[in-house]
Amino acid sequence: MSPRGRRPAGSPDTREAILAAARTAFARDGYQTSLRGIARDAGVDPALVHHYFPDRATLFAKAVIESTAGIDANLTHRAAGITELEPEQLGEGIVRAVISLWDEAGADRFTAVIHAALGQGGRVEPFRDFIAIGVLSPIVTHFCPDRPQLRAQLIASQIIGLGLARWVARMDHIASLDAEALVALVGPTIQRYAFDDLPDVANPA
Amino acid sequence: MSPRGRRPAGSPDTREAILAAARTAFARDGYQTSLRGIARDAGVDPALVHHYFPDRATLFAKAVIESTAGIDANLTHRAAGITELEPEQLGEGIVRAVISLWDEAGADRFTAVIHAALGQGGRVEPFRDFIAIGVLSPIVTHFCPDRPQLRAQLIASQIIGLGLARWVARMDHIASLDAEALVALVGPTIQRYAFDDLPDVANPA
Repeated sequence: MSPRGRRPAGSPDTREAILAAARTAFARDGYQTSLRGIARDAGVDPALVHHYFPDRATLFAKAVIESTAGIDANLTHRAAGITELEPEQLGEGIVRAVISLWDEAGADRFTAVIHAALGQGGRVEPFRDFIAIGVLSPIVTHFCPDRPQLRAQLIASQIIGLGLARWVARMDHIASLDAEALVALVGPTIQRYAFDDLPDVANPA
Repeated sequence: MSPRGRRPAGSPDTREAILAAARTAFARDGYQTSLRGIARDAGVDPALVHHYFPDRATLFAKAVIESTAGIDANLTHRAAGITELEPEQLGEGIVRAVISLWDEAGADRFTAVIHAALGQGGRVEPFRDFIAIGVLSPIVTHFCPDRPQLRAQLIASQIIGLGLARWVARMDHIASLDAEALVALVGPTIQRYAFDDLPDVANPA
């Protein structure tokens, strides 16, 4: 602790202290919890939160999604692996990556992330911020510059729904299939959202 | 009230009393709340709950989904309308029905249903019981006898994910589109899940 009672930058414990405080705060208050409150709980200057985690979505991903899923969940690393696929493998690759992560982590952990994201009834946007914009949008942009955000959000809608069906609602015909069966069933949907000519719909205002 | 302090069958208030008690109990305890407790709270014999509502999924649908969405939400009626479509209209018809219902009801009401369904962290299956089995499976069986339950659950996964993207996470590119644009974008996914030859994956155990 510094003379002001705060952990300094560079202390090996500082990043972990922020993550621990964030995990508690997100679970208690939902996604829109106060970042200043997290800094206070961790005993660090608020600027240090931004030093280690550039935005709320990244902090949520590291504190809640990755820590809940387990130590091998490094989402940025997994996303980078997907950009190395051939374009025709993209849909299957995305489904395979998601299913393998959460089958390994466990259904209860996926459910815990959903609950943390939905919070106590507040309006929460971790899926939009992190999944659609932070992870999927760069992947889709890499493969397809045409309307990448719309494509990423369509893909996110199917992936989140698949996760809810398999790990939260435990719909029996989806929950009992092995990963490669789901890759074969749902991969073509993702492939279409990523690459097909989409109907000429109006852009958002 | 009867001499035993319970409302008799056929009393005009009985059905409404059960619905009111169920609404409170589902919101408080989640989908697995006690049906006997609902009967007790409503002041009716437990057999009357089953008389008016044949199963938990129907009671949840009437008490939570329809009452939250509004008086015009009659899901059984809407589902019957879809079975009258031509097969090539099925995917678009399902998307149109879902979007029009919840755009009219309001995003906050969809979010409220999601929260009631997910409850306080327990394992909850209203989507499986009601959406996939109660509503979608009969529709899909009507059009396609080949593996209707798997097809219904794949459709449910995309529809629930679309709802989360549009009304809960409010992903901007999906939330800002009008209903017919989403019908054009997502209808073909539903159509494929309903009618295409699906890969020959193992059936659930």
